[in-house]
Amino acid sequence: MREMGWPAAMPSIDRDSIVPIYQQIYEELREAILTGTLPELTRLPPERTLAEKLNVNRSTVVHAYRELVTDGLIEQRVGSGSRVARAAGHPPRSADVPWWVTLPPWRVGSFPQVLGELAATIHGERISFVQGVPPVEPSPLGELAKSFARVANDPSYVLTYGDSEGHAPLREAIAARMRSRGCETTARDVLVLTGSTQGITLVAQSLAEPGDEIIVEAPTYPGALQIFQIAGLRAIPVAVDEDGMRVDHVEAILRTRRPRFIYTMPALHNPTGVTMNDDRRERLVTLAQRARVPIVEDDPYGELVQHPRGPLAALSSDYVVYLSTFSKTIAPSLRLGWITAPRTIFERLLLRKQSYDMATSLYVQAGVRDYLETAYDAHLPRLRAELEARRAIARDAIAEHWPKTMRLAKGGGGFYLWLTAPREMRARALLDAAERNGATFLFGEAFFAASGGDHNFRMAITPVSREELVSGIERIGAAIASVGAR
Amino acid sequence: MREMGWPAAMPSIDRDSIVPIYQQIYEELREAILTGTLPELTRLPPERTLAEKLNVNRSTVVHAYRELVTDGLIEQRVGSGSRVARAAGHPPRSADVPWWVTLPPWRVGSFPQVLGELAATIHGERISFVQGVPPVEPSPLGELAKSFARVANDPSYVLTYGDSEGHAPLREAIAARMRSRGCETTARDVLVLTGSTQGITLVAQSLAEPGDEIIVEAPTYPGALQIFQIAGLRAIPVAVDEDGMRVDHVEAILRTRRPRFIYTMPALHNPTGVTMNDDRRERLVTLAQRARVPIVEDDPYGELVQHPRGPLAALSSDYVVYLSTFSKTIAPSLRLGWITAPRTIFERLLLRKQSYDMATSLYVQAGVRDYLETAYDAHLPRLRAELEARRAIARDAIAEHWPKTMRLAKGGGGFYLWLTAPREMRARALLDAAERNGATFLFGEAFFAASGGDHNFRMAITPVSREELVSGIERIGAAIASVGAR
Repeated sequence: MREMGWPAAMPSIDRDSIVPIYQQIYEELREAILTGTLPELTRLPPERTLAEKLNVNRSTVVHAYRELVTDGLIEQRVGSGSRVARAAGHPPRSADVPWWVTLPPWRVGSFPQVLGELAATIHGERISFVQGVPPVEPSPLGELAKSFARVANDPSYVLTYGDSEGHAPLREAIAARMRSRGCETTARDVLVLTGSTQGITLVAQSLAEPGDEIIVEAPTYPGALQIFQIAGLRAIPVAVDEDGMRVDHVEAILRTRRPRFIYTMPALHNPTGVTMNDDRRERLVTLAQRARVPIVEDDPYGELVQHPRGPLAALSSDYVVYLSTFSKTIAPSLRLGWITAPRTIFERLLLRKQSYDMATSLYVQAGVRDYLETAYDAHLPRLRAELEARRAIARDAIAEHWPKTMRLAKGGGGFYLWLTAPREMRARALLDAAERNGATFLFGEAFFAASGGDHNFRMAITPVSREELVSGIERIGAAIASVGAR
Repeated sequence: MREMGWPAAMPSIDRDSIVPIYQQIYEELREAILTGTLPELTRLPPERTLAEKLNVNRSTVVHAYRELVTDGLIEQRVGSGSRVARAAGHPPRSADVPWWVTLPPWRVGSFPQVLGELAATIHGERISFVQGVPPVEPSPLGELAKSFARVANDPSYVLTYGDSEGHAPLREAIAARMRSRGCETTARDVLVLTGSTQGITLVAQSLAEPGDEIIVEAPTYPGALQIFQIAGLRAIPVAVDEDGMRVDHVEAILRTRRPRFIYTMPALHNPTGVTMNDDRRERLVTLAQRARVPIVEDDPYGELVQHPRGPLAALSSDYVVYLSTFSKTIAPSLRLGWITAPRTIFERLLLRKQSYDMATSLYVQAGVRDYLETAYDAHLPRLRAELEARRAIARDAIAEHWPKTMRLAKGGGGFYLWLTAPREMRARALLDAAERNGATFLFGEAFFAASGGDHNFRMAITPVSREELVSGIERIGAAIASVGAR
């Protein structure tokens, strides 16, 4: 029997990760075995010993070893402990291991499940400020149900797939809305998607290759970070201040590096709520043109700005790939969004979009097109007013119930509050305390590609009632006091 | 000025491709310029000269050159012809070319738009046998509209995203149906997707890496081939006969090669309509287990077999990744399907699914779950009966209107007829003649990963009325006579 491969293959543990520790141990050992760092028949340390070395519970190591046994990678016998199974590593698949053990490597990043968390059905009693869903009032449901009822019995909408580019009348309606915001968009520039999430994956897979660099904001939408990680892209973070992305930082980066694209959310930025000022908009587009690096403009909230301005796409149709969605302005469960892009790459995007789902639901597209014609323009101002009212309510409640040391990002609007706790208070500790008090939110690290966010957190003001908004802020206020008191 | 790089970089043309010839020329020249095969300032042959060499119209070359000018890759001056632009190739992006010119390479395969064609809204007067959509009668629409109306006013279905794994009651309903077909599926094994197309991309991207080999049937579903091409996978074809996939061929391949998975459609196979016999099913699963290569079972038609048998997934939950959809049994515009997979890889699939669209429309899921409870079991036998009746009608019409030399695949069922023309008749020529006569179908090459299909074509018997089914067969009969007469 071989000597132990330790400590060369000693698992390293990140206690701040949301990946369970047993899974971190399991994955590191699995990789060490498959790559031969731990050769066949290597004896693993007893569970108790490893648990002590790693300073974790013994049951955590037991759990990790059990997964390795399930995979056929290690053997356990009473009295003689655990060892790497014969021929578990190389050559792949020759040994008695299930097929999935030799799958291509799979890197999930630090917050692998964040998209799932942002989507998941809420259970339990806590007041949850996690999800960026529209408020229940003003409700689009009555009119939307009528629109769907008008199309639901038409076989040409329901019993076919429809053009993978999107339903022609919907493409025209979207293009007309974009033209009213200063763009030169025509219906044929619009590719209908199931949401802007699909658009982010589409550009990540179509405009870049694994290993390529891109520029992102810091903080930024964590769902985008998850997608970029899955696509193997390396995100270069650029700070955001109260006027939006620090375009001067972008300029500095472009002097020496060649990112594939610049991902930005210039209107009601998630999570800070800021909207990029006009100077920076023009400078960013000029920079992009000069460096020949396209901008990916993610614009789910563009129509919710109180005093709307045109998107970046209005400044350049060639250098801005534009994404938006009806998830925030009508309803998330529509799964309906779109992308516009220069004609030359439209076909490339279209073919890949087809591979994701052939075409977006024609039934949903026809229903939403009907809704756009009949009810959307009345709904939007009501929604804007509700967001404004809620922000005022939240600001007042925070002023009343929280200490002055908690800072709210300036100049914000839209769905989110972005908060900074004082130096001595970590947002995760505050989250633990808040959850004990019956309220929850997203802590800041998930919004940063690299480091940052330890003292930040995001509260969506929309998924709760106005009353819950106030009482949730009170509960978090109590949590702040309890954490501050330590 | 440099010498011409010709004929090293002479474009090669595939006249049988559905990619326009000008685009083939454009793409080959673009690649040659970007890779430096045609260095900067290389003089290109005059349009007329190249057109003669390639035996194409001069306007075709003019069109290709014009695209290269648009991209900034070549320059044209009156009197001095065309030459490669300065610094158009290396280093990338330093020259005065738009950003998209230096995008990562993009390989689209022979039939890049086939998924789009299978989805596209039909225009014009031709009787089209192209698309695999359900027949208009028996119609699910009345009951489906009622189901949607019952969920459309519930904010918990419409104003949220919902679990990215899928709506829990729908997952349970799907699992129960699979259990009734002999599987051990539980709700937590079911990942809801927007259709089986999404599932094919999901396995192509999650279970393999670009360059990896997989096994496919020959012929097979062309949408799957498009997806595998986009994912960079190399498909090894295995013949299909009247008892399904030639599992003995699979065995021979597995002796020397290590494909990542085996893609098969064992029930009412697209396009041949055959269903794999029991012997081959058991042997295929045994082979997969022995070689440790998973099977990807694509089963959109499993519930439409006249005498249903269990899916391959009933023989092994570990070695079969199972895909199905409601597109063929209820309505394509639902964009609703699912995948089941071994627990160990479920998370991997889930995270990637999230990147495609965050979650499948909860509104649609809730509506379909209601439909499954109230109407689906009554709809299915009516749909099966309609398919059977249409096949009989089609067989009779073919016997009456076509020569005996046209062969219909034996043992078929379901949505498609797979036909073989005699040696002297190419399916593309027949398609041209049929379209002149007002009927259209899909020619065979798109169904083959490598060569094959020149004499085959597929007719979907479902997207037309029963009357059009007969008159379309008559029209094709006249086309056969006209082509045969040449």
